[in-house]
Amino acid sequence: PRSFRIVLLPGDGIGPEVVDQAVRVLEAVSAASSDFELKLESHDFGGCAIDSHGEPLPPSTLKACQEADAILMGSIGGPKWGVNAKVRPESGLLAIRKALGLYANIRPANLASESLLEYSPLRPEVARGVNIIVVRELIGGAYFGTRKEQGVEPDVDTAWDTMIYSVSEVERITRVAAQIALNANPPLEIHSIDKANVLASSRLWRKVVTETLTKEYPQLKLHHQLVDSAAMFITSNPRKLNGVILTENLFGDILSDQTSVIPGSLGLLPSASLAGAPSTPSTDFKPTPGIYEPIHGSAPDIAGKGIANPIGTILSAAMLLRYSLGLDKSAKAIERAVQKVLDAPEIGGLGLRTADLGGKVTTKEIGDKIVEVL
Amino acid sequence: PRSFRIVLLPGDGIGPEVVDQAVRVLEAVSAASSDFELKLESHDFGGCAIDSHGEPLPPSTLKACQEADAILMGSIGGPKWGVNAKVRPESGLLAIRKALGLYANIRPANLASESLLEYSPLRPEVARGVNIIVVRELIGGAYFGTRKEQGVEPDVDTAWDTMIYSVSEVERITRVAAQIALNANPPLEIHSIDKANVLASSRLWRKVVTETLTKEYPQLKLHHQLVDSAAMFITSNPRKLNGVILTENLFGDILSDQTSVIPGSLGLLPSASLAGAPSTPSTDFKPTPGIYEPIHGSAPDIAGKGIANPIGTILSAAMLLRYSLGLDKSAKAIERAVQKVLDAPEIGGLGLRTADLGGKVTTKEIGDKIVEVL
Ligand SMILES: CC(C)[C@H](C(=O)O)[C@@H](O)C(=O)O
Ligand SMILES: CC(C)[C@H](C(=O)O)[C@@H](O)C(=O)O
Repeated sequence: PRSFRIVLLPGDGIGPEVVDQAVRVLEAVSAASSDFELKLESHDFGGCAIDSHGEPLPPSTLKACQEADAILMGSIGGPKWGVNAKVRPESGLLAIRKALGLYANIRPANLASESLLEYSPLRPEVARGVNIIVVRELIGGAYFGTRKEQGVEPDVDTAWDTMIYSVSEVERITRVAAQIALNANPPLEIHSIDKANVLASSRLWRKVVTETLTKEYPQLKLHHQLVDSAAMFITSNPRKLNGVILTENLFGDILSDQTSVIPGSLGLLPSASLAGAPSTPSTDFKPTPGIYEPIHGSAPDIAGKGIANPIGTILSAAMLLRYSLGLDKSAKAIERAVQKVLDAPEIGGLGLRTADLGGKVTTKEIGDKIVEVL
Repeated sequence: PRSFRIVLLPGDGIGPEVVDQAVRVLEAVSAASSDFELKLESHDFGGCAIDSHGEPLPPSTLKACQEADAILMGSIGGPKWGVNAKVRPESGLLAIRKALGLYANIRPANLASESLLEYSPLRPEVARGVNIIVVRELIGGAYFGTRKEQGVEPDVDTAWDTMIYSVSEVERITRVAAQIALNANPPLEIHSIDKANVLASSRLWRKVVTETLTKEYPQLKLHHQLVDSAAMFITSNPRKLNGVILTENLFGDILSDQTSVIPGSLGLLPSASLAGAPSTPSTDFKPTPGIYEPIHGSAPDIAGKGIANPIGTILSAAMLLRYSLGLDKSAKAIERAVQKVLDAPEIGGLGLRTADLGGKVTTKEIGDKIVEVL
């Protein structure tokens, strides 16, 4: 059997608890197949690494990540390493993204089960059928451009950041969006978001997205939307943006978080941060290295209580199997098991609900059931 | 009686129709008072000015605006002056903001009437009681920083914009937010939004907001929120941000539009763009020059049909009376009349609804009724 090396970065707060359940699920799918085996190893990252190594991303952790086939992360941060701390967990996050070249952040937001509609802050008729995958450029733009802090000469009373994009940075993220769109049947439409009526970097963005898709993926449908009107639609009529939302780093940070509240609990949603474009069903599989993690934070208030929702992490593990290991069947099996656990009993599901969805089911019980269904 | 000079910029699309009704309302309140009179004059601005003068902001329009006590605008733009046009109406908007020094954009978002709850895309229990005033910095940040287009040397393959803020720019917008907060009784809480965990300009923003409020307005409550989590809360639990949202230009563009969909129709919401901090009830009135306009666009699809909702423009006229002319009583009278027209008949209102709210009442009928109630 093929052997894959998976690095686990459980992190802080509820991170270790939710990663534990995802590990059980990964072990269940690998036990069910004689095609592959998974070698799992845990490393310190985030606040716990600040405590143990004095820095959020110790060299030993980075090295393990660079050698791994894929990385599964929990969540990082907490009041212990708060705003006024000298070293902060988030700086490790930005550093690992840059060091591994993870330029593509993929965040699907859909209702894993129709029976979750009642948890959405949107009216059911507005939230029903929302199926958006946000593809966010992750290592460019204002996050990594030149900046100047207040207090630095010559203009001690100003501070600035540079939103900068190059043609090649926009080309490669456009290809990721296109490949994701082609993974669906029929292919998804692409909604590219920018502020081209004001920003030079957005005008470059719009031009390069248009040219790359026209030349390389003429079969895909492309729409352009200004970031302010996208922010309106995501709340007022999100189905209008069904498909792939393709956008730059800072807009993606804002819009992906806005989109993620539609399904009603952050605990349900996975993410992938990739160093390449995923393969499509019609191409030979080429592994894409990446970090997979739930979108929720470390939730220090409920850490250690065993009540966190592990589904976001379990669905992240499914994305890991799909994009980094090429095990699409196992990924689908996990996604089906999750849906069964969430679906209402009336339609043959188990209707299990953790505390974030007003229920009493524990983290481990969700893991148990998903393993059982698998 | 004191005499005020008001410049009207009806603009394009439905702009002229909605401004007409606001003018009738302004004339009704001035006829009802012997304290003041209004001298109204119309000027070309936007697409219609491109047609008549070759530019969206002709010098004669700018001069009239500079000499006016206040400016009431309709809406600008349309397919005729679209993305590929050489001169675009929006450039006039950015130019007039800068030329008049309108650094403070004020956008209240609340349900003018409880009976509008059913039009919100949010569940009634989520939308109920939302009362947010967005105070957006309007002539700084990435909108007006140095930029470089793609194709320009030395790096023809990159484009960039600079998000830049100075201490004094942040101080003055903070004072506007504080004065707005003090106009309510009890004073509103202030939610300052930034991305201080990544951006240098946001770190300056957070520091200056904190220092200015602590020193000059110690009685006000201040919260800091990252822009991504603010985008979550505005949809999932907007009451958490009740009060004043204080933010920089680009974040304000996105978040004010996101917030504006909560009341269910853009046609209901007013805005003010001011060149100074408004007076508070406890200080002597000092007029603040400004442009007042509804937040909706020019809606070319319904232009000329007489069915646009004029309430956003009429409420903008109320803000004009309050901030630029010091006629708070007349402003309140208009706001009460609007509420009466919108309130359900069961609670003594007229329950009138234009097409944007699924009704059949015309633009002029809304104007008629508001004038009648006044
Ligand atoms: C923690 C922060 C630096 C980070 C970001 O802004 O990218 C986070 O918000 C995210 O979206 O992963
Ligand atoms: C038209 C555009 C330049 C403008 C802006 O981004 O400021 C608009 O979106 C607004 O918010 O008034």
